[in-house]
Amino acid sequence: MNVEIIAVGTELLLGQIVNTNAQFLARELASLGMGVYYHTVVGDNLNRLVNTFLQAWQRSEVVILTGGLGPTTDDLTREGVASALGRPLCFQEDVWQQIVAHMQRTKRPIPENNRRQAMVPEGAVVLPNPRGTAPGLAIRDAGRLAVLLPGPPREMQPMFVDHVRPLLLQMIGHGVILSRSLRVIGIGESALEEQLADLIATQSNPTIALYASLGELQIRITAKAEDEAAANLLIAPVETAIRQRIKTAIYGIDNETLPGVLGQLLKERGYQLAVAESCTGGLLGSMITDVSGSSDYFASGFITYSNEAKQKILGVSEAIIKEQGAVSAACAKAMATGARQKSGADVAIAITGIAGPTGGSPEKPVGTVYVAISAPEGDLVEELALRGERSAIRARSAKTAVNLARLLLLGELK
Amino acid sequence: MNVEIIAVGTELLLGQIVNTNAQFLARELASLGMGVYYHTVVGDNLNRLVNTFLQAWQRSEVVILTGGLGPTTDDLTREGVASALGRPLCFQEDVWQQIVAHMQRTKRPIPENNRRQAMVPEGAVVLPNPRGTAPGLAIRDAGRLAVLLPGPPREMQPMFVDHVRPLLLQMIGHGVILSRSLRVIGIGESALEEQLADLIATQSNPTIALYASLGELQIRITAKAEDEAAANLLIAPVETAIRQRIKTAIYGIDNETLPGVLGQLLKERGYQLAVAESCTGGLLGSMITDVSGSSDYFASGFITYSNEAKQKILGVSEAIIKEQGAVSAACAKAMATGARQKSGADVAIAITGIAGPTGGSPEKPVGTVYVAISAPEGDLVEELALRGERSAIRARSAKTAVNLARLLLLGELK
Repeated sequence: MNVEIIAVGTELLLGQIVNTNAQFLARELASLGMGVYYHTVVGDNLNRLVNTFLQAWQRSEVVILTGGLGPTTDDLTREGVASALGRPLCFQEDVWQQIVAHMQRTKRPIPENNRRQAMVPEGAVVLPNPRGTAPGLAIRDAGRLAVLLPGPPREMQPMFVDHVRPLLLQMIGHGVILSRSLRVIGIGESALEEQLADLIATQSNPTIALYASLGELQIRITAKAEDEAAANLLIAPVETAIRQRIKTAIYGIDNETLPGVLGQLLKERGYQLAVAESCTGGLLGSMITDVSGSSDYFASGFITYSNEAKQKILGVSEAIIKEQGAVSAACAKAMATGARQKSGADVAIAITGIAGPTGGSPEKPVGTVYVAISAPEGDLVEELALRGERSAIRARSAKTAVNLARLLLLGELK
Repeated sequence: MNVEIIAVGTELLLGQIVNTNAQFLARELASLGMGVYYHTVVGDNLNRLVNTFLQAWQRSEVVILTGGLGPTTDDLTREGVASALGRPLCFQEDVWQQIVAHMQRTKRPIPENNRRQAMVPEGAVVLPNPRGTAPGLAIRDAGRLAVLLPGPPREMQPMFVDHVRPLLLQMIGHGVILSRSLRVIGIGESALEEQLADLIATQSNPTIALYASLGELQIRITAKAEDEAAANLLIAPVETAIRQRIKTAIYGIDNETLPGVLGQLLKERGYQLAVAESCTGGLLGSMITDVSGSSDYFASGFITYSNEAKQKILGVSEAIIKEQGAVSAACAKAMATGARQKSGADVAIAITGIAGPTGGSPEKPVGTVYVAISAPEGDLVEELALRGERSAIRARSAKTAVNLARLLLLGELK
């Protein structure tokens, strides 16, 4: 069953707001296994709105519109859909009374133009809106469904969950669609696709899809089946086959994050963590403490940006700074050792490098970064050669450091 | 002149990412005075992509596509547009060499399937991509223009500004459109709109528009004129009028950032800065050191997450922790003083608070944050009551701290 999403509003066309409604609805529809082939944004213009709706109505069983249900003459979604479907708009006294009651509760005056919001296309079901004045509308027509939802996310989202989702579940009939995402780091998109090419090509239920974002990859396995247990039985062998190929590059599933997974490993081992950062300037600490509950295992961090701070605060020797430089394997190692000692933590991660755009040299170009980890499992130091802008180099340095710590604690290094 | 924006990618249709590219392009096009009547999202499907492009091509002079330029067989934008326009795709050796050079710099292996990215539709201009492997493409055809841009915002945005904007300005003909953005912090969007309502309503050249993002606001003044000097003459009096009303809430212009502006103030005064962070866990240091050249004034930072670390590393007294708690004005003050002493810096900023979702109490609910600053200009401590999720509370705490330091150094506090 195909669904289309149409967002109505000139503020979207001008880029004044971002279309998060489309994202919310797309996710919800994907979780129901409904195929969404198009999102469209159209402005507050009756002619273009009607044409956009009719095109969607021809090619999809369900069309969901958001926005344009307000009280002003700019709000044209009701009129547009009613005229496209050839249904007259009728004033409905009970709907008007609900709008009046809402405005009385919020102690607002009741402008006459709000009466427009009580106009209902013939045969439409009114979806109540406890959070605003604009009611939603659902129109069934020859086995198809048009849904009109208000634009503000805090009104639209609960209306979808409470009233539209049940309608869609009815239309779908039984059966479920289940997805599992494997989260991957340390391998490139094309390399991953090459490794899984035969699996991706031969699988149709479940399907396998790859997504890249922010230096990480996701492998999404999606199965259709009678019930959840049956869907899980379809997913399991495919997940096993993928895991056999890329092993520990998979750091987690679904909504797990890399810092969250490291936190879990630290907690299980009863370890306290410290960080020592130069070029990342606090980003590593920030990533790790962005996890709620990280105070259980995060002890402290040292942002030693200057050479002096590295010596004074972490006890890096002057000889290392002078002979090998602040960006060196030896300095990273000394920072990790110093952080572990100064904080009393069990594990320390240190990063030093050149994030650019200045500070590079032929021997140590921008993007040269050293990560050192000191832990009861052993010590390691790794040289990275990263590319990109300052912020990308910093972000990759921090992520790589977290991943190396994860692998070290898992006993997967050396 | 009409423009349409088409974003290509199944990850958008599934709601895995939000279409911020459409917002960026819509704003840029609005600032050029170009009308955008439709945004569309279509998946990685050749047939639907071709049809969507052809529809846009019939009704708009310029069609901008984002995404689908990657190396995998899912990436179909090149093929789709080339086939819609009846132009054969040719492998271009010089483009391939640039891709190879980029991957060699980033020390990645060079998968064979990246060769797809060197396929260029006949007659297309190749737009260089220093930040990734996918070059952009611009195709002129009978007075119209199709532009293909990569999907990742950090590659797409500079490519638009550097290469596409000039092409569009050429198409628009003579005259220039000039914008100046005033960057604002510490005032809400509706309050700002109220303060500027009469100016916004009466101005037509230049126009005034407000944008909110990430806890900050931008006031964008846009003028059309014969040349740059004339446009500047139109902008200047409006800028002055706005500055008279909201004064130091304007921290900078155009691409200036709040940490960059603070850095400039520190540099002018020859000050070294230290930070001491609890709930922000390194985010403040990360924000400040995200500025290139921050090593000139950023000395060091202390992430003292545990009470023990606050005492041991920063010398916060046990009495303060026991009697007033780690989340208190006294603790923030002691952290700032301790950081200044331990680092030898001239200025220290300290943050301690409850970022949530757990750890709140009736007296100190989630979002209670104390910021303390110690500087030659004097000391201050401020209590914030923030709302939102953990990451939003952390981000606002860090931004507010930077802004308070800016105002203190400017002599605008007390």
